[in-house]
Amino acid sequence: MTLTLADARSVIAAAEAKAAEIGQPMNIAVVDAGGNLVSHVRMDGAWIGSIDISINKAFTSRAFDIATKDLGENSQPNQQFYGIHASNHGRIMIFAGGIPLTRDGQVIGAIGVSGGSGEQDHAVAEAGANSV
Amino acid sequence: MTLTLADARSVIAAAEAKAAEIGQPMNIAVVDAGGNLVSHVRMDGAWIGSIDISINKAFTSRAFDIATKDLGENSQPNQQFYGIHASNHGRIMIFAGGIPLTRDGQVIGAIGVSGGSGEQDHAVAEAGANSV
Amino acid sequence: MTLTLADARSVIAAAEAKAAEIGQPMNIAVVDAGGNLVSHVRMDGAWIGSIDISINKAFTSRAFDIATKDLGENSQPNQQFYGIHASNHGRIMIFAGGIPLTRDGQVIGAIGVSGGSGEQDHAVAEAGANSV
Amino acid sequence: MTLTLADARSVIAAAEAKAAEIGQPMNIAVVDAGGNLVSHVRMDGAWIGSIDISINKAFTSRAFDIATKDLGENSQPNQQFYGIHASNHGRIMIFAGGIPLTRDGQVIGAIGVSGGSGEQDHAVAEAGANSV
Repeated sequence: MTLTLADARSVIAAAEAKAAEIGQPMNIAVVDAGGNLVSHVRMDGAWIGSIDISINKAFTSRAFDIATKDLGENSQPNQQFYGIHASNHGRIMIFAGGIPLTRDGQVIGAIGVSGGSGEQDHAVAEAGANSV
Repeated sequence: MTLTLADARSVIAAAEAKAAEIGQPMNIAVVDAGGNLVSHVRMDGAWIGSIDISINKAFTSRAFDIATKDLGENSQPNQQFYGIHASNHGRIMIFAGGIPLTRDGQVIGAIGVSGGSGEQDHAVAEAGANSV
Repeated sequence: MTLTLADARSVIAAAEAKAAEIGQPMNIAVVDAGGNLVSHVRMDGAWIGSIDISINKAFTSRAFDIATKDLGENSQPNQQFYGIHASNHGRIMIFAGGIPLTRDGQVIGAIGVSGGSGEQDHAVAEAGANSV
Repeated sequence: MTLTLADARSVIAAAEAKAAEIGQPMNIAVVDAGGNLVSHVRMDGAWIGSIDISINKAFTSRAFDIATKDLGENSQPNQQFYGIHASNHGRIMIFAGGIPLTRDGQVIGAIGVSGGSGEQDHAVAEAGANSV
């Protein structure tokens, strides 16, 4: 089971609405069950450095079936996964904004958001994830 | 002068319609005047190896303000740009599917398409480029 | 809105004068609104390891519209952006020396400086940024 | 023996004058005897894909003490250096535009130019090289 482009677009629309609501332009990316990009949008005025980060947050969330915020807690110095950000050719993001997408209890992909504070990124990703 | 997300979506919609018409699912990417990704979609069933290629074709077209098909002709063995595909950290694509996007005679970004034959990729990119 | 080569040269001249004043040879780079390099100089005697760093500091400052010094504070262990230095293919610098360049309240590019202490790099970048 | 920033600037000025004369905006880079970048300029309107290429042409010319045009002839399929463009992490450019800089018969650095046809790039690089 994976998601379609139509699914990805509807997830992005929900995230985009949340970003507009909080007034922070974002990069939003969705990957499928294989961790491969399905769609990405950069809202007008969103940081160009966040293009790569949004895509990588989505990849990371699906790669480990975990929110990047939670992975981050385990990846600080002296924690069990410290150093994981050096793996996977720089694609592992260990800060908030990536969340797995699930349907009927199964992970079918992930969303990654980047463009604001960690709290904002997570909130926008959550809006997308809840829309599935 | 650059393009907006709304512009990019309308370019992608035109390209997507063409891809549907010829029955070949595609990856379609649009970059802005700075060569930075604005939006990407992978149609259902399109190759995952073409995600990167579509984004890089769009980058290449803006990087040199040229269709990748034309750059490709100049980049064959014994031609003046042979070897250019080794530059820019592997981001230069020298086969058909990337076309600059222009408005009032000025390049404002580029579209990159990957998922079918070179001829198909170029035709889909052209449909997108003509819609600006 | 972006900057011209003449703008970049004038920013570099101001930064170079500051570097000469404090007696520390520097690498100085300026990128445009798209994050792409416009000009770079390495003053005689400046570190060769700082070529890449100066260019990347300029990129980072434009990529997130922030001084790299401030991004650095948010990117320490247990802070909200910890791990961001692994993104963007190693181009994100999280220590002092990068500052956005603004005109009429809009970011038009960025300067990146590397060759001394963090404090020196920031002071030289500031001299450049203030000259716009 | 190597070159100074003042040398590099004077080489760039000569190349820039030639580029202006032929009406083609260029990226121009100068490296020192160690192959490390001393200075780079992107003239207004020059291709962003040529930033990396100009720097790499200069590196390549110093790396092998040869004009990239001549290296290119030896690097075509079935020639003795075919495949060399895959070495040095993608920094080897095998088409016209890079020329060693010599003083008193000794190589002290190199110039790399990118932004036009191979012939134009070489002519602009030559103007720079002849000014030493």
